[in-house]
Amino acid sequence: MIAAPESEIRLIELRGGLGAVPGVKLAGVHAGIKKRKPDLALVLFDVPLGCASVITTNEIKAAPLIVSEQHIAINGTAIRAIVCNAGCANACTGERGERDARQTARQAAALLHLEPAQVIIASTGVIGVYLPMDRVVRGLERAVKELEEGMEAAYDAAEAIMTTDNEPKLAAYAFYDRDTRYVVGGIAKGSGMIAPNMATMLAFVATNAPMTRETLRDELRAAVDDSFNMISVDGDMSTNDSCYAFAPVSDGAAPRGFAEALRAVTHDLAYAMVRDGEGATKALTVDVSGARDAQQARTVARALVNSNLVRTALYGEDPNWGRIIAAAGSARAGLDPDTWSLFLGEKLWVDRGALEILSEAEAHRELENTAVHVRLDLGIGAERATAWGCDLSRDYVRINAHYRT
Amino acid sequence: MIAAPESEIRLIELRGGLGAVPGVKLAGVHAGIKKRKPDLALVLFDVPLGCASVITTNEIKAAPLIVSEQHIAINGTAIRAIVCNAGCANACTGERGERDARQTARQAAALLHLEPAQVIIASTGVIGVYLPMDRVVRGLERAVKELEEGMEAAYDAAEAIMTTDNEPKLAAYAFYDRDTRYVVGGIAKGSGMIAPNMATMLAFVATNAPMTRETLRDELRAAVDDSFNMISVDGDMSTNDSCYAFAPVSDGAAPRGFAEALRAVTHDLAYAMVRDGEGATKALTVDVSGARDAQQARTVARALVNSNLVRTALYGEDPNWGRIIAAAGSARAGLDPDTWSLFLGEKLWVDRGALEILSEAEAHRELENTAVHVRLDLGIGAERATAWGCDLSRDYVRINAHYRT
Repeated sequence: MIAAPESEIRLIELRGGLGAVPGVKLAGVHAGIKKRKPDLALVLFDVPLGCASVITTNEIKAAPLIVSEQHIAINGTAIRAIVCNAGCANACTGERGERDARQTARQAAALLHLEPAQVIIASTGVIGVYLPMDRVVRGLERAVKELEEGMEAAYDAAEAIMTTDNEPKLAAYAFYDRDTRYVVGGIAKGSGMIAPNMATMLAFVATNAPMTRETLRDELRAAVDDSFNMISVDGDMSTNDSCYAFAPVSDGAAPRGFAEALRAVTHDLAYAMVRDGEGATKALTVDVSGARDAQQARTVARALVNSNLVRTALYGEDPNWGRIIAAAGSARAGLDPDTWSLFLGEKLWVDRGALEILSEAEAHRELENTAVHVRLDLGIGAERATAWGCDLSRDYVRINAHYRT
Repeated sequence: MIAAPESEIRLIELRGGLGAVPGVKLAGVHAGIKKRKPDLALVLFDVPLGCASVITTNEIKAAPLIVSEQHIAINGTAIRAIVCNAGCANACTGERGERDARQTARQAAALLHLEPAQVIIASTGVIGVYLPMDRVVRGLERAVKELEEGMEAAYDAAEAIMTTDNEPKLAAYAFYDRDTRYVVGGIAKGSGMIAPNMATMLAFVATNAPMTRETLRDELRAAVDDSFNMISVDGDMSTNDSCYAFAPVSDGAAPRGFAEALRAVTHDLAYAMVRDGEGATKALTVDVSGARDAQQARTVARALVNSNLVRTALYGEDPNWGRIIAAAGSARAGLDPDTWSLFLGEKLWVDRGALEILSEAEAHRELENTAVHVRLDLGIGAERATAWGCDLSRDYVRINAHYRT
């Protein structure tokens, strides 16, 4: 799924996501927040883990984010559990929302014999609705009994955090450092890029590789910047977006290979989001090369996957490269109108600003693929970036016009 | 259409748009750039007029914009004509595109006995396609013969600059200053807000009210900021977006009432764009009040009309106020999560951050209107701003998935 890094670090792709990490138990149950589908996930770590987070920059933050950040501040080296519900975002719910979030953590802690501040909580779903606490409590009681290790339990948990997702999202990689085997695994939910305006994304990633909390924080930040932040524009994050990473705390460096494995996991989870985007029929990978610096490349790449007009053209398999270029120019990242070239798959599509190389029929054939790859070379420098998105279909509108849990 | 200003300035709404301005002749013909529909508009002013422009901030600028800016630099006090075609944007067309743009101006000038630099040219349509110059030339010859004053000719011209517009867009207001009657009138095209990512908007506004070019420039900039720039985010302007204003040049102040009339015209043209937005079934007016400053109010108002999730909820008449608040928070303009209140029409919808006042059924009834008015009071200061948008429908996707001229 991801290219091997240049050094000899070898990643082994595993099944089971978060369930592939040793010492992680999971459960997913139907608590009744949604009508029928599973809606409450519980994760328990055998040992206390250090925790790092990257959360939404939205000024309206959901109650569980506020409470979880407090727990990390109090107890960030010894987190033991995650509770995540779907069907209700517990956002814009005022003081009662915060009380509900705290009660959820307290209840899970009581059932698992932990401190409340050892529990991370997360919610996704409709904004402005209170959590049905009686159902959450009863759901937790059932989830505690169903906690198990392994792939099946991880699928149950990944399903229980879905909203409009069609498929649970799991990713895991193993790597070896001096004959010790380590695993990084995660689960996530989200419709990603399809709804840059605040479709919630949640991701939980854990590892048995020990490291300092600073390393965990820095590596998570870097991995998120190149994965989840390249499918959804920062400024448009939801009230609930959050990514949590967990690792045993040591005072040494992380094992060699950890950064690569973490990047592989976040990449795969991010790509799974766009592939499963609301109403999506095609995934879009946009490479921007020849940029002056990485920021320029990132800005332009994100502008392309964000453009409604690029995305509707992709849906219609319409080889309208003018929309791609207009979207690039609208990002105001310092394009030179005369030096850019556009590639579709491996083929040169438009040469230096004006010369169309690929015929409309040839371009259309490339666009018929369900995974479309576009590269825009800015012809300015040597930096590059990649963003992922998907098409904007009539189904997206249908799904979002009448969104119910 | 627009509230009367506080002073005793009285605006009289006229029919005929640009054709209501004395001394303006217009024509709209089918030159054959599009298959069947009118696609070439010509406007002739009886006397040379001063010209001001506000053009796209997109880094990829279409050839006609570049050439017209040069003409304004050379001859900005003595413009006599406008040529505008639909069906081809003449953008990303390199040197040949600029040659074609210059030839269009030269040809019109020859037919009308003007200097080429007295002609403003504009194009809208598909990017990356060359203008069919033989058809443009023949179309111009016919248009010159059909030039006429009045409402009918103005409708013809307004129709000939349409792309996906369903209706021609015209607006005109008269006002009196010391018993002299003045008129400000304009025509425009554009799907506006529906496609913040670069659906082209063009507007041409003229008046018989004399003023300095500086006044014309300043008043145009201010009027555009509160109208066209509140339906489409600056950073997302198309390669061809432009608004030109024309007025007799004097060394005195503009007649009293001009600023108000210009604002009324640009407001009406901008609102016509969102009402006629691609696939739109409802127009959305967003007022943001209680802001710390005008910039905060503008940023938040634009975030709301820009949000795909707010717009799909509007299409579905779904009273999902959480999406409105999440979109406001994502603008990162300095919201206070505890002080905002939301109004739907005249009714309080959500009180201070969390308390839902309006029932879901009541809110749904308000959303059934084809013109929906939302006000978000930030509860911070006393400034306000208004933005206009429309819903995001399945038809929007259909239109843009298979866009052909």
